[in-house]
Amino acid sequence: MPAGRTVPVHPIELPPGHPRYGTGVETIDDVGEFGLIARVLARLPLTDPDTLVPSGDDAAVLAIPDGRLVTSTDLLLEGRHFRRDWSSARDVGHKAAAQNFSDIAAMGGVPTALLLALVLPGDLPVAWVEEFAEGVAAECAPLGAVVAGGDMVRGELITISVTVFGTLEGRPPVLRSGARPGDAVCVAGRLGWSAAGLELLAAGIGGGDEASVGGTMADFLLAHRRPRPPYAAGPEAARAGATAMLDVSDGLLADLEHIAAASEVAVDIESASVPTAEGLRLDQVLTGGEDHALVATFGPATPIPAGWRRIGVVGEIGAGAPGVTVDGKPWDGPGGFSHFGPRE
Amino acid sequence: MPAGRTVPVHPIELPPGHPRYGTGVETIDDVGEFGLIARVLARLPLTDPDTLVPSGDDAAVLAIPDGRLVTSTDLLLEGRHFRRDWSSARDVGHKAAAQNFSDIAAMGGVPTALLLALVLPGDLPVAWVEEFAEGVAAECAPLGAVVAGGDMVRGELITISVTVFGTLEGRPPVLRSGARPGDAVCVAGRLGWSAAGLELLAAGIGGGDEASVGGTMADFLLAHRRPRPPYAAGPEAARAGATAMLDVSDGLLADLEHIAAASEVAVDIESASVPTAEGLRLDQVLTGGEDHALVATFGPATPIPAGWRRIGVVGEIGAGAPGVTVDGKPWDGPGGFSHFGPRE
Repeated sequence: MPAGRTVPVHPIELPPGHPRYGTGVETIDDVGEFGLIARVLARLPLTDPDTLVPSGDDAAVLAIPDGRLVTSTDLLLEGRHFRRDWSSARDVGHKAAAQNFSDIAAMGGVPTALLLALVLPGDLPVAWVEEFAEGVAAECAPLGAVVAGGDMVRGELITISVTVFGTLEGRPPVLRSGARPGDAVCVAGRLGWSAAGLELLAAGIGGGDEASVGGTMADFLLAHRRPRPPYAAGPEAARAGATAMLDVSDGLLADLEHIAAASEVAVDIESASVPTAEGLRLDQVLTGGEDHALVATFGPATPIPAGWRRIGVVGEIGAGAPGVTVDGKPWDGPGGFSHFGPRE
Repeated sequence: MPAGRTVPVHPIELPPGHPRYGTGVETIDDVGEFGLIARVLARLPLTDPDTLVPSGDDAAVLAIPDGRLVTSTDLLLEGRHFRRDWSSARDVGHKAAAQNFSDIAAMGGVPTALLLALVLPGDLPVAWVEEFAEGVAAECAPLGAVVAGGDMVRGELITISVTVFGTLEGRPPVLRSGARPGDAVCVAGRLGWSAAGLELLAAGIGGGDEASVGGTMADFLLAHRRPRPPYAAGPEAARAGATAMLDVSDGLLADLEHIAAASEVAVDIESASVPTAEGLRLDQVLTGGEDHALVATFGPATPIPAGWRRIGVVGEIGAGAPGVTVDGKPWDGPGGFSHFGPRE
């Protein structure tokens, strides 16, 4: 299964006193299913020249001029991947689209469309769903992506399922398995910002009160709420001849393990080269997820494209299994994350 | 949004004393995320000649030889669309795939692949997920469809999000909007069987005890648990020149309203012509959902293809709005369903 899961440093839990949904405002129950669908559709980009049959029939029909479809799917759960008191509905809409589109970019592709399936409590304010749709639309807009279909069902907790499509524009896909000893390991985008923002929120800083924090702290909060994947860097890396690529959803080191395993190589990261920012700790940069940076490897003779930064090197597998090291040593700080297994 | 929602005659509710998940058996928490993924993947068809990059990288890459993609998405929630004491995990797997593939057939398409995103409680037995996967695989097998990707996340209640793909094999899609006055209204597949099965289960008959019921009652229970959409009838209708088509997920009359509205026509159903079976009431046949029969309209000069049965006629819009009548009169029995709005 595509491994583009988001990984909070602190798993989000709803506090015991978390308020129920809207009271005294217009709720989903008030407007009914068809009213809600109409309100959501009015806010989404539903068609483009490749949309042969838009949402509204039994299924949509999309033109696929490249003859190949890049696709991935992800789930976001309230209380697990977002909290409504930490992120606005618009933030959640941005994030739901971004974390999925990032998987397309990580193949060297360009996002073209998404499908959106929502579980929604009947007492959720309609405004939340409208603003969520506006966030999705705003993330789609600069990419020209459309919402090609969806489903909405009543349930207890907001659950968002996004399936994304993209095109390779004639290029071969960039897999995780193509890294070779001697390749440069490079990154595009930010690392650790989202994790730092989540830590601030978990510490009670910045929840709904942007004015109370400033400078980089406000940037970290924003980065957690609305990740900004470097979409264009994916196709650029593909054009430049990247040998392997993925998006950093679970943390740099954890995700590089996938390249190491799939390519049967070792990877060493030079900690001094990894992009950081004032206020970030090294463990946040190396293990924080959800920024959706892209990591790619390039052959030793390949010029590293603009927007990419060299942070390490691919090596032969040593005595042990394929693996990832930092400055030549195993990383012994925090890292890794599992959705199941004994509670983190 | 594609309207392929399933519609129980009785909305399913978990009883207050509904048992929690497994105790004393191997649970998801016991095997962890990667263990679970491996166990699920081992049971799914993951690749075919059109699978250029299978599940396992950031995204899958599928060849789309037709140059057009048919796609739709649907959600199933435990307690809303199924109960684990009424349906086996294998039943739920069959149903999750079938209700979505049916939307592809309803466009005249052939299902090719699906993506599967699951919310799973940590204390759910691993065997449930394995058997669910086997049900999905068994529904895919005769179609040659593959599972091209997925996601699994821990949550409180089993939630299944399925996105399906299909191909039109060079044919134009059959929309809801093409019915014309004089067209024959035809059905392929069963009507009312699933609703009858659900009524039996709601009445406490047949829950996990197949031997206690026989004959058509057992068939109705099976029809509810594992709908059998007439997949081949969709492309056959398209080849024969169907003017409009959809799948009956919400009930014959409710779904025909979509054709009537999209085509701006009236539809009259001859109740004596509608296929039924011993033990079915007319209201079950006309308003029961979830069998995923296909309904299509054919021009007056078009021979009705094998496997299709004429049940009514398309007419001009009369004095009122477009609409559906039975034997020339509005249907005044039960029908209709909304996912939101005051609780059904």
